[in-house]
Parts: sequence; structure tokens; C-alpha cells
Amino acid sequence: MPPVRRGFRSCAILAAFLCAGSAAAQDLAPPTQPAESAAPPVALLAADDRGQAARLADAALSGSGAFDVARALTVEVGPRLAGSAGDRAAVVWGLRALSGLGLRHVRAEEVTVPHWERGTASGWITAPYPQPVALTALGGSVGTSEEGIAAEVVRLDSLAALRELPSDALKGKIVFFDVAMERTPDGTGYGRAVGVRGRGASEAAKRGAVAVLIRSIGTDRNRLPHTGALRYAEDAPRIPAAALSGPDADLLAAQVASGRPVAFRLLLTARLLSDAVSSNVVGEIPGREAPEEIVLLGCHLDSWDLGTGAQDDAAGCAIVLAAARLLGELPRPPRRTVRVVLFANEEFGLSGARAYAAAHAAELGSHVVAAEADSGAGRVWRFATRVAPEALGLAAEIAAVLAPLGIEPGGNEANGGADIGPLRRLGVPVVSLQQDMSGYFDVHHTANDTLDKIGPTDLDQPAAAFAAFAFLAAEAPTDFGRLPPETDSPF
Amino acid sequence: MPPVRRGFRSCAILAAFLCAGSAAAQDLAPPTQPAESAAPPVALLAADDRGQAARLADAALSGSGAFDVARALTVEVGPRLAGSAGDRAAVVWGLRALSGLGLRHVRAEEVTVPHWERGTASGWITAPYPQPVALTALGGSVGTSEEGIAAEVVRLDSLAALRELPSDALKGKIVFFDVAMERTPDGTGYGRAVGVRGRGASEAAKRGAVAVLIRSIGTDRNRLPHTGALRYAEDAPRIPAAALSGPDADLLAAQVASGRPVAFRLLLTARLLSDAVSSNVVGEIPGREAPEEIVLLGCHLDSWDLGTGAQDDAAGCAIVLAAARLLGELPRPPRRTVRVVLFANEEFGLSGARAYAAAHAAELGSHVVAAEADSGAGRVWRFATRVAPEALGLAAEIAAVLAPLGIEPGGNEANGGADIGPLRRLGVPVVSLQQDMSGYFDVHHTANDTLDKIGPTDLDQPAAAFAAFAFLAAEAPTDFGRLPPETDSPF
Repeated sequence: MPPVRRGFRSCAILAAFLCAGSAAAQDLAPPTQPAESAAPPVALLAADDRGQAARLADAALSGSGAFDVARALTVEVGPRLAGSAGDRAAVVWGLRALSGLGLRHVRAEEVTVPHWERGTASGWITAPYPQPVALTALGGSVGTSEEGIAAEVVRLDSLAALRELPSDALKGKIVFFDVAMERTPDGTGYGRAVGVRGRGASEAAKRGAVAVLIRSIGTDRNRLPHTGALRYAEDAPRIPAAALSGPDADLLAAQVASGRPVAFRLLLTARLLSDAVSSNVVGEIPGREAPEEIVLLGCHLDSWDLGTGAQDDAAGCAIVLAAARLLGELPRPPRRTVRVVLFANEEFGLSGARAYAAAHAAELGSHVVAAEADSGAGRVWRFATRVAPEALGLAAEIAAVLAPLGIEPGGNEANGGADIGPLRRLGVPVVSLQQDMSGYFDVHHTANDTLDKIGPTDLDQPAAAFAAFAFLAAEAPTDFGRLPPETDSPF
Repeated sequence: MPPVRRGFRSCAILAAFLCAGSAAAQDLAPPTQPAESAAPPVALLAADDRGQAARLADAALSGSGAFDVARALTVEVGPRLAGSAGDRAAVVWGLRALSGLGLRHVRAEEVTVPHWERGTASGWITAPYPQPVALTALGGSVGTSEEGIAAEVVRLDSLAALRELPSDALKGKIVFFDVAMERTPDGTGYGRAVGVRGRGASEAAKRGAVAVLIRSIGTDRNRLPHTGALRYAEDAPRIPAAALSGPDADLLAAQVASGRPVAFRLLLTARLLSDAVSSNVVGEIPGREAPEEIVLLGCHLDSWDLGTGAQDDAAGCAIVLAAARLLGELPRPPRRTVRVVLFANEEFGLSGARAYAAAHAAELGSHVVAAEADSGAGRVWRFATRVAPEALGLAAEIAAVLAPLGIEPGGNEANGGADIGPLRRLGVPVVSLQQDMSGYFDVHHTANDTLDKIGPTDLDQPAAAFAAFAFLAAEAPTDFGRLPPETDSPF
């Protein structure tokens, strides 16, 4: 991840702009084609379009307005968990925001979402050294009885360790999964640690446990637990599950290390209510020549309820909306349509992503490419793709235009993101404008995910990258091919 | 505040040790005497004693054991607000800890303490953009009714701004004091900001306000509000008061800045209960020749209830206990008695400090000097005094022995600390081994004041400084004189 000094960045952008303006063949020649690409070794992107992309990026770097969008969503709406009053307020906000930023065909597309309420969460170590702890329910957890659950604690450091236990070893116990997450720029530490959050409760329940505590999946040292969805298996009792903050997990581990039996009492009032109605909020910059062809930019409008969802994902929505505003203000719109989708309910089951793929099944063949911003407020440092082999030449040309932003080319195994996952599995090419996630998991899914964690200019470089990418993707004379479908159903 | 590299520090300590051992007159000569000092320009401290002090410091730097003390108090007791079950457990812990560390005459000296319970705290901005906020009651606040208090918010940026308002301007309003604290190494930003916490409620109540919210007095960006004591004036109605976390204060300020009326609902269940019994926990290293003369090392055993009181003040107790342990393990005890006092209830009215001064009134003349550790886990960077003018020569000699620890000499206007304040006002000389407080107010009085905020070796340098100081003060052939008494009553 190459850091780029601000002065250098401005120079590089200026150089890209000037070179584009003078159409200097040497600077604009596409990079050497990857061996697996079938594209001819000539420039696909017009010099004027490269120059326009660089100018869009420069405009974003000079002040994209993205921070103002993030501020508005966090100050005027705040927490917006699927099905909540905040979620409904967010849809109203989204419709107004998209119209206000100059998008067209602005609309709410209904999505049925699950409606879970966190309620209150309390926990106490009751022996050997009584102390209250800071914890929160995992998303989707059932509540406890009014008296709570009181039981002895068994500490485990992995799901694998649990599977090695005799089948009755956890009978009547509270399992404490003590798995520490590693801090990495690409966020891969999250994937390695998060399994106990999703599957820990059911795996423990199958072995007789009555509740599960996990060390928060996060990289900070604050007494603010990280929530996130669990998934109950069909073949296991549904037991309550909660996350302890890091310092509280330390405390529980220290008491376990004392060698004396550790007892805990857990009280959760979480509950699942009836399904609710939310919406994907959609708007467009209609294409100049091929309006039916779609370049999709996504983010998610919902958030967890603990914070105001600043990094997750007001930041992403701010990035794609700022990019779309810049595209909409061009004197000549791009050739294809750029569609912005603020997806409903990413956090608690991807309802919006699935609903979009289903509602737009007939036009998925016209979705040229999709990108998503859902990684916080860090700078974009890598441009990875998952496109057809014959489109790698075009991808490399786009990567070359993004390079002055301090973005290195990635491979062709991009995931794209959770909300465009159903599209990818149905054959739509995707790209990942990967953001630096080094600090993201300090606040992810916590009460600390608030506006102050985003610097006023942090979102300008990501907005520049999304604007330049979207413009080139919408203007390119060729497309990104199709991916081999992994499924024929978005569900 | 001179930072000292670890390698250099070890070398400096070693040099001090070797020089002391060889009694090289050049290195051991006292520094130039301050002009106001009447002490003669010859060494008061024996070369052997300087060498012993350096060896004590070196032993502490090599592993003082202080962190283990802080860990034990936070893991085995945790929160210990005056009058609570944790407070009682802390006294039991303290008696055992002092005995275990080899102190003598270990005892609990009863102290009557006020007993306030925080209860629960909830707050919501209800207009223009409804959102819950994170807040906590200020220490001593009355609660609200069960329905809470709902009123319009008036934002003020100082107590002075409040005093300029017409007398009825705040009638029925909730006052929001939005005063930001500055981060400084010596913690002086705290003193400049904290006035609204102590006096804001009564000042606002005198002008008709129904409740007070303050921006937390702290330097962090976490959604963990900072508590701390308020003081109700006799001539004002007692209205509820709470601290918003920094990000929540930002949110409230942003909604106020929208120009639309801002409404708030506050619900506190805080209440004052009947007085309770706690104790100062006292132990000694009896003096070899003058056991009736006392060098007092203090800290406070109580903590606020939100965290486990790791920095405030398990760290301080760990520092003075580690120092005392080292003194107690000397083959030849110091000439005077070193007395350690773990004071009861510093946080909510200094009950232990007042009770100690009252109970020991008859022997205060034998208190040669007092020092206190209540500034967290930062390194000691300055040695300031408040001693009689004729003792400045001795103070300068002690400062010279502390210098290799990276400690610079301060002036003779030291405050000493809150718990030894009554002693100082009654004429007992004090010193301040000032710790770096740059990061202290990130966690001070919050749920984040937990063990993980202290590094395993952080307390060794402060323990070294306290051990070396206490040894030299207990061994010195002369004393620190007396201060002019400011009062004749500890109350």
C-alpha cells in the first residue's frame, strides 16, 4: 500500500491532467497487457476521456463534498438499523439527498427486512471476583429470561478447540470464545477472526452450552463492544450470544487464569419482531448514448444501532454520492448510465442486495460493471477486478489512470463487496477500489462509529477514485464481458 | 519534559551507581544552591545514601512489580466507588496487599464516606433530529423524575457566557456547556476546563435551568463519557447534571448549529444514600533511628465506578507500594519511618484525606514530608517541591539523584496532590513527582480506565523515582522544615 505525499499527489494529478490535455502518446499508452488478456495492445480509452477522468479526480481532491454527505446522514438520521424508525428516516433522507445532488430517476424500491431489537444487555462476573462487564448482544441473538442466565464459564480460543471437546463438556456452561483479531491494511484479520461470531453460538449449543460470550471482533482497546450478525443453525437450540469489549475480555480471561471457577450472569432483552418494510434508494446519471447500459455504484444505507454508522457506511454512501454528483455536473454526461444504489439492510442479512438482484433480474445483462464502497473512510490503495479475461486490457488502462492517486493495480480475483455479491454471482463483472482498513476495525460495529472518526478531507481521495473509475467505465468503448454465473438465483 | 531513551537511561543509572560507589567528589557535589537557600554549599546526603538510592531506582527499573499490583487491584476488586461493595472489597484487598509486600503496622483507619449511586443514565435528542446519546451522571447529581426531564437546549461555551445572560434566559431550559479541554503534558488543561463540571449545575439552576449537560472533560474521541464530582451550592436548586461523551457533544452541537430548536430528554436514576464506612489503609517501613518521623507516600484506594480505576488510581497505589516494598527489602531500613497511606474516597469529597489529617493531628509535626501518586501511569518528568526555604539545598541534592531517571528539577510551588492537601495546608512540606499526563485525560473518570491502558513496564520508572525519593527523604540528616500553615483545621 504505497502512501502518497499530498504534494506529490497534486503534482501527479496535475501531470496526468496536462499530459491528457496534450494527448502525449508516450504518457497515455496503455501499460503492457497481462499475458492472459486477449485485448489488442492499443489504447481503448480515448485520450480525452483519460483527461476528463483525471480532471474529475482533481475536482474531487480539491473538495468532493463527500464529508458533508456523511455529516448530514449521521447528524440528521444517525443509527438506522433495518426496520427501525431510523431506517425509515434514512430512506426519506436518501431520496432527498439523491435528488439534491442532481441524480435522476430517484426512487425507493421496497425491500422486506427482518426487524431485530437489541434491547438492553448486562453482564456480571459473579465469581471469583465479582465485577460488571461491558457487552452487547450479537445481531439476531435471542434474549435471556428476565432472571438472566447464570452459569460457569469455559474459555476456548477457537471453534476448533470446541470441536475437540467431548460432546457433554459444555452442558450447562457459558462458552467464552477468546479469539483476538489481527490488524491488517486489507482487513483480512477480520475474516480470520469472525467465524466465532457467526457460528459460535450454534456450535456451542450443539454441545450443551446455554450462552456464548465472545471477545469483540475488533482491533481497539475501548470498552465499547463490537456487535455484528450471528447465524443460528437449524439443528441447534438458539442460545443467547453477546460480545465483550476487548478490555472486558481481558478481565474475564484474567479471572479464568486465576485457576478458580469463574461464574457469569448474562441478561439480554434482545428480540426479533415482525418483518418490516425498507427500501433500496436508487438514482441515476442517465447515459448519453447507451442509457440502458448500467455502471452500478453501491453502498448501504442501513447501519448497526450502536453508533451513527459514520464509517459503516455513511462514508461509503458519501463517496459514491460525491462521485455521482461530479459525473452529473459534467457538461456532457457519460455514454452509459451510472446508477447509484443505497442498499437496504446490509448488516442483518443483505436483504437489499438480494431484493435488487431479484427486482432487476431482467436487466442484469445490461449491468456492465458494479463497484461498492463499504470499507470506511481510508484512502483507496489498490484497484482489483473480477472481469472477463478479454476485458483485462481495459482494466489495466483504467488502473493506469488511477495510479496517480496512489492506487496500485490488484489482481482479477476481486470480491467486489457484500451488496454486489449477488450480482457477481449472477455474472456481473465487479471491481474493488480497496480502501486502507488499518483503523476500520477500531470502530466497526461499535458505538464509536461516529462522524469524528472521519477527517474532513478523508473521503476526497476515495471519491476521486470512484469518480474516475465510474466515468471511464461508463465511457469505455468496450465492456467488461461477463463472469461465469455461480448461481441462477439471487437468493 | 525530556524524553529519555531506554539505553541512555540504563547507562545514566549505571553511571550514577558507579559514581556513587566510588564517591567521586566531582559527580556527587551538590548543584549550585538557589539564591534563596540558606543551606551551606556542602553535600547533605551521604555518598553511600546516594548510591543506595540509585541502586533502588535501578532495581525498580529492572522490574518493580508495580504492574502486578495494579493488575491485582483491577482484576480482583475492579470498580470501588466510596460506599460500594467494591470499596469494602478494596479495603480488604489493601490490608492483604500491604502485609504481603512486607509493610508493618498494617491497619485500616475508619473513614465515614458519602455513598452515591449512579444508577442508569439515558438521554435523547428529540428534535430536530431524534437520536439517543451516550452520557453519564456527574458524581453527586440528583436523579430526574421517572418520566425524565424534557426541555429545549441552550448551548453555552463557558460559565462566563452564562453569567452574561439575563436572569430569566434559562428558565425551563437544559443548559449544554460545550467547553473543550486542551491536551497538555502537565494536565493543566483539566483545571481550565473543569469549572463547568463542578459549578455549572448550580450556576445554571440560579438562572432557572432545569438540567445541565456538559461536554465531557477529557481529551479523547470515544463514546465513553467522563464522570467526576459536581458541587451543589447552598443557594441554588439541585438540578440533574450529566456529561455527554465528546462525539455526542459534537452531535448535539451540530444539531444546535442547524438553527432549529433542539429538544432533549434526560433520565437519571442517580441518588444519594446514607453515609457509609470505609477506611484509609495504612502500613509502614518503621524507621531505624527516628521511627516517629514520617515520610508519607500516598495514593487513593477508591475509584469511580465506570472503569476499574486502573490509572486512577491503581497505578498510583502500585507505584507507592512497589517503592515501599523495595525499601522494606533493604538490609538496613531507612533512618525515618516511611508510611504508605491508601486514602479512602478521594473522588467524591476527599473524605480519607480529611480524616487522616484529623486523626493524626497530634503527630503532623512529625510528618517530615509527603508525596502522592495520583496522575496515572506516565513517566515522572519533573520533581517539584513545596518545602521551607532552608531545605532547598536538600531538595536540590535529591533532584540531582533523580536526574538520571530523566527527571528535571521544578520550582518550589508544588501542590503535592489532593490527598495530601490537608497536610500541606497544616504545614507539612510536600513534593510532586510529576508524571506525564498527556494521555491521562483520554481515559480519566471513564469506563475506559482499565488495566490495558497501562503497559507492563510503564510503572517501573515512577516506582524508581518514588523509591529513590522516599529513601533519601527518610535517610537525610536534615529535614524539609515546615510550611506556613494556611489553616488550623483539616476540614
